[in-house]
Amino acid sequence: MMARASAVVLLSGGLDSATVLAIAHKQFSVIALSFDYHQRHVSELDAARAICRNYGVEHRIIRLDDGVLGGSALTEDSIAVPVNSADVTGAGTIPVTYVPARNTVFLAHALAVAEIKAAADIFIGVNAVDYSGYPDCRPDYIRAFSEMANLATRAAVEGQRLTLHTPLIRMSKAEIIQTGVELGVDYAQTVSCYQADADGRACGQCDSCRFRQTGFAQAGIADPTRYYA
Amino acid sequence: MMARASAVVLLSGGLDSATVLAIAHKQFSVIALSFDYHQRHVSELDAARAICRNYGVEHRIIRLDDGVLGGSALTEDSIAVPVNSADVTGAGTIPVTYVPARNTVFLAHALAVAEIKAAADIFIGVNAVDYSGYPDCRPDYIRAFSEMANLATRAAVEGQRLTLHTPLIRMSKAEIIQTGVELGVDYAQTVSCYQADADGRACGQCDSCRFRQTGFAQAGIADPTRYYA
Repeated sequence: MMARASAVVLLSGGLDSATVLAIAHKQFSVIALSFDYHQRHVSELDAARAICRNYGVEHRIIRLDDGVLGGSALTEDSIAVPVNSADVTGAGTIPVTYVPARNTVFLAHALAVAEIKAAADIFIGVNAVDYSGYPDCRPDYIRAFSEMANLATRAAVEGQRLTLHTPLIRMSKAEIIQTGVELGVDYAQTVSCYQADADGRACGQCDSCRFRQTGFAQAGIADPTRYYA
Repeated sequence: MMARASAVVLLSGGLDSATVLAIAHKQFSVIALSFDYHQRHVSELDAARAICRNYGVEHRIIRLDDGVLGGSALTEDSIAVPVNSADVTGAGTIPVTYVPARNTVFLAHALAVAEIKAAADIFIGVNAVDYSGYPDCRPDYIRAFSEMANLATRAAVEGQRLTLHTPLIRMSKAEIIQTGVELGVDYAQTVSCYQADADGRACGQCDSCRFRQTGFAQAGIADPTRYYA
């Protein structure tokens, strides 16, 4: 039996990236990367650890230096996480939960790890349907990052094409959940809430919780999320 | 008098990036970024500190987590830095001093800091003439990063164009040195050597030292570099 090729999977510990890990795991030997960037909802890292233990995959938590990612409701105590906000369609303005350049910083790290590990595949759980309108989740952005990445490395110069996989990009939240359930994802382990408590329990009111609740309802699947509110 | 706009400048502490800082400083309020990535030649960070003190500019040294940048003669004791290598033209293969995805990781951090600081300009001292053939120094790579960056951020969505400046990209090393001398750069403060000692003294034999020596000779300027060998 041939050894499986390696793929780097960005894993926040939330619903989307846990589904992506399950998809990647079908075909690849997964190296999961999570980031400690002083996010409010640091319990998502415990969720990421539990998911990786479940799948038996390699997991690295990369600590970003102080202040690299900032200026967001997810990183600054002085900016409140919006709850029950009117617009969760992604059609309006970019919300205060946007973290400047986050996916670019995450993907740059993934590219570095992929080249060191001789992996030609990177997975990221961006979604352009039920999402918050973040610029670095859009298909045009992903395409541009991929073009850049394929000029950036020794591997690229030597003809090894890097593929940036975004299996969720055109799915609704309900479709993501259905896909994950079929693959055996334990969504009770995942933390999506922007202000989850230390035990990983969710507020039920932020944009991320609302997308998630609506997704379970539309998928006709009981919501396993633990709430504190 | 209007306040100057801010620009983020990637500063290794070497000859090229010190020249870039001097160029940027003519027009912008500079935020210099250096990176501690467990490089052999960590004394370049002392050089970067001294340069920033000289110019009175803000300086941040960002620590990258263990193993983010690796797999290079510049990061692994097990891989020797090549000395007196036959090919320093950039025409041949990529040398072992290539650090996987280094400029992508550095520029991603610069993009994050730029957005937080509302800076629309990033400077990097890449050079495609007297260089070592690194893929992430080529004009095509820089163009692709710029396109990606202009899709990545809230600032981009709101119409603020980010400019990635590469003032050295078409200059010879001699032209870079002449430019810097005219701007008053103190090259004695800079450290280019891949295996500089703790005091910032250079080996005089690695590719980087040889490019630098040839540059001073061709510029007809006395080489102020301190050597240990």
